Amino acid sequence: MSGENFRTLPPRELRLELEALYADYTGCLDEERFEDWPDFFTDDCLYKIVPRENFERGLPLATWLCESRGYLLDRITAIRKTSVYAPRRIRRIVSAIRIHGWTGDVLEARASYAAYETLIDELTRVFNVGEYRDQIVVSGGRLKFAEKICVFDSQLVPNSLIYPL
Amino acid sequence: MSGENFRTLPPRELRLELEALYADYTGCLDEERFEDWPDFFTDDCLYKIVPRENFERGLPLATWLCESRGYLLDRITAIRKTSVYAPRRIRRIVSAIRIHGWTGDVLEARASYAAYETLIDELTRVFNVGEYRDQIVVSGGRLKFAEKICVFDSQLVPNSLIYPL
Amino acid sequence: MSGENFRTLPPRELRLELEALYADYTGCLDEERFEDWPDFFTDDCLYKIVPRENFERGLPLATWLCESRGYLLDRITAIRKTSVYAPRRIRRIVSAIRIHGWTGDVLEARASYAAYETLIDELTRVFNVGEYRDQIVVSGGRLKFAEKICVFDSQLVPNSLIYPL
Repeated sequence: MSGENFRTLPPRELRLELEALYADYTGCLDEERFEDWPDFFTDDCLYKIVPRENFERGLPLATWLCESRGYLLDRITAIRKTSVYAPRRIRRIVSAIRIHGWTGDVLEARASYAAYETLIDELTRVFNVGEYRDQIVVSGGRLKFAEKICVFDSQLVPNSLIYPL
Repeated sequence: MSGENFRTLPPRELRLELEALYADYTGCLDEERFEDWPDFFTDDCLYKIVPRENFERGLPLATWLCESRGYLLDRITAIRKTSVYAPRRIRRIVSAIRIHGWTGDVLEARASYAAYETLIDELTRVFNVGEYRDQIVVSGGRLKFAEKICVFDSQLVPNSLIYPL
Repeated sequence: MSGENFRTLPPRELRLELEALYADYTGCLDEERFEDWPDFFTDDCLYKIVPRENFERGLPLATWLCESRGYLLDRITAIRKTSVYAPRRIRRIVSAIRIHGWTGDVLEARASYAAYETLIDELTRVFNVGEYRDQIVVSGGRLKFAEKICVFDSQLVPNSLIYPL
């Protein structure tokens, strides 16, 4: 897809493109294909995980802050090399994809997510819920996140925020 | 959209319209734009929140019962003016939108929802899950709920049912 | 729909067909229309529920294993006749439907699910989350599962896995 094609998609087709994007994105993470995760972002992307309270007050403090695709790659390397945490599975559910409008060729979209954590020999529990606030562009023929801010509802920072959301 | 357009949408396009409607609806509530919430309903709407046990047995008892858009507006005023409850965030996930058929220009649709509650300084927990049983019409050029019944799976009425579902 | 129609659906229309299928499937189960559930499967289907650890290691042990539609029917008979367990409601949320490709007329698709359990006089809790790994075909004019493997994230087998996922 070209940027021009993207920009002129009718709303219903645009919704389907976004559904495919979010499905692929969470599928990639849920299946722990972490090395593929940075490819969902542009080179100069912004990726943040931030508590809603901070986000709404405009406070700069973020739980995660990656200011380029290179940072994302570093994160993955760190995840793969670190083993100080207990093994766990994260499952992400996405809902309520909303198209918020265009700035040039950049689409602003939002979606709700719920993430579940399962530790070995423990039952699954709700881990983190919140909203994706995304800027989406076409790059290299596919949809990519130029910006992805994961705004989570809790004020508690989960100390087990090891994997991306 | 006109009622005639709505009534004649092919099934796949109808599904996309409903996905957009439910996304906008839960987005509105999750972002706490409560003043916009009544606009998703017709003037003479019926909005109910009811335990599944009561619903299936045909018992009239409802946890919430609003018999017009005016009631919904009153609810919002009450929410905004009341501060006897602890601040909390609710996040709603919607899934499994099902088209159940038409009665004239009224579409019956169902969807499953899961709502999560986050109190300040607490972890997120599952709050309420259930099914939307909706009657949808076109009014003023957009889709609106003529009837929305939130049938929740629990028999326990959450005492913190402060915000709409 | 014919197999030929199915095979040649454009990606966006295929996605909508799958969304309708998963919505109908979970709706059928959530509304406890269990007798309709086997009709979502081909006669010689494979239906399995298996812990992710076992699945990824290729271990054969499954929590449920039904090797034909007849087995599914037997399951339902057993559910309806058994009353040794406490009454409960299960609600299923589906997300991230991914189209993985074709082998002849068989479509491989995946989706994430989260199931919630509500016992009478108890609050709703997360019950089981995981991934559907499905083989889908056209049979008798509608989409059916030739294979459905429910791979759940936990290593703990919920002793209350009474109803299908």
